[in-house]
Amino acid sequence: MLYAEDLIVGQTFALGSMEVTAEEIVAFARQWDPLPMHTDPEAAARGHFGGLIASGLHTMGVAIRLTVEALVGDLAVVAGREIRTLRLHRPVRPGTVLTGSVEVTEQRLRDDGRGVVVWATELHDGAGDRVLSLVTETVVFRRGADAPARPAS
Amino acid sequence: MLYAEDLIVGQTFALGSMEVTAEEIVAFARQWDPLPMHTDPEAAARGHFGGLIASGLHTMGVAIRLTVEALVGDLAVVAGREIRTLRLHRPVRPGTVLTGSVEVTEQRLRDDGRGVVVWATELHDGAGDRVLSLVTETVVFRRGADAPARPAS
Repeated sequence: MLYAEDLIVGQTFALGSMEVTAEEIVAFARQWDPLPMHTDPEAAARGHFGGLIASGLHTMGVAIRLTVEALVGDLAVVAGREIRTLRLHRPVRPGTVLTGSVEVTEQRLRDDGRGVVVWATELHDGAGDRVLSLVTETVVFRRGADAPARPAS
Repeated sequence: MLYAEDLIVGQTFALGSMEVTAEEIVAFARQWDPLPMHTDPEAAARGHFGGLIASGLHTMGVAIRLTVEALVGDLAVVAGREIRTLRLHRPVRPGTVLTGSVEVTEQRLRDDGRGVVVWATELHDGAGDRVLSLVTETVVFRRGADAPARPAS
């Protein structure tokens, strides 16, 4: 398990990769962001981007999924608390394979058995161009806190 | 259609409402945020929150879905560009009915036929307690810009 003390500013974790398919773009957006640019290939082709693009929330979902797979299973997380910033640098089109990294940018130990950890996540596409930057703040248990070692499993 | 010129700082739109069910919490999180506090009711019951809570990304999805339903179908949107802040004030548990509002907090007309609009969204639960604050920045067409009136439909 990784506790707040184990996370050092500058520490970087590589993320796995995930392909974003046209089917997923449409299915995700129908449920959470039903704009034609995400849900209707023909309308999207006539629109500003000249074709379907993923909802920004979908791209953020990929970032979070890859982060959970890369490290959160080993992290004594209490909860996510805040997104400080999300920037969408370029549209994500069907067939794009996203990968990236997450870096610890702040770590502050508190007296209540927890620590606050800030993470900077970046996703890039197959050409190496950056598509997303995400800065999140989470609360993580300190080693030996009275809370269970695996609080939610 | 609502163009950038039509959006005035202080203008507020009421959102509809959506219930967050246990089934949706688990289904959403299995795909995008597979932590036991979101996916495993028994593990969650033993964990920090004493039961299942929705992924923050799921709660944000509710906010975006309700916003699209409330106004984006009438908005000449080019694209979302940035989330300036997302704050999760309290956990969202199964059966919570979320509703809220979205307010225009900045509007800046550009010379290229577009405007930048900043929106502050708040969601609260059935007891009126605030669960989410979200500040987003979007690009919206100006009236009479050379782009299509409905860019993506």
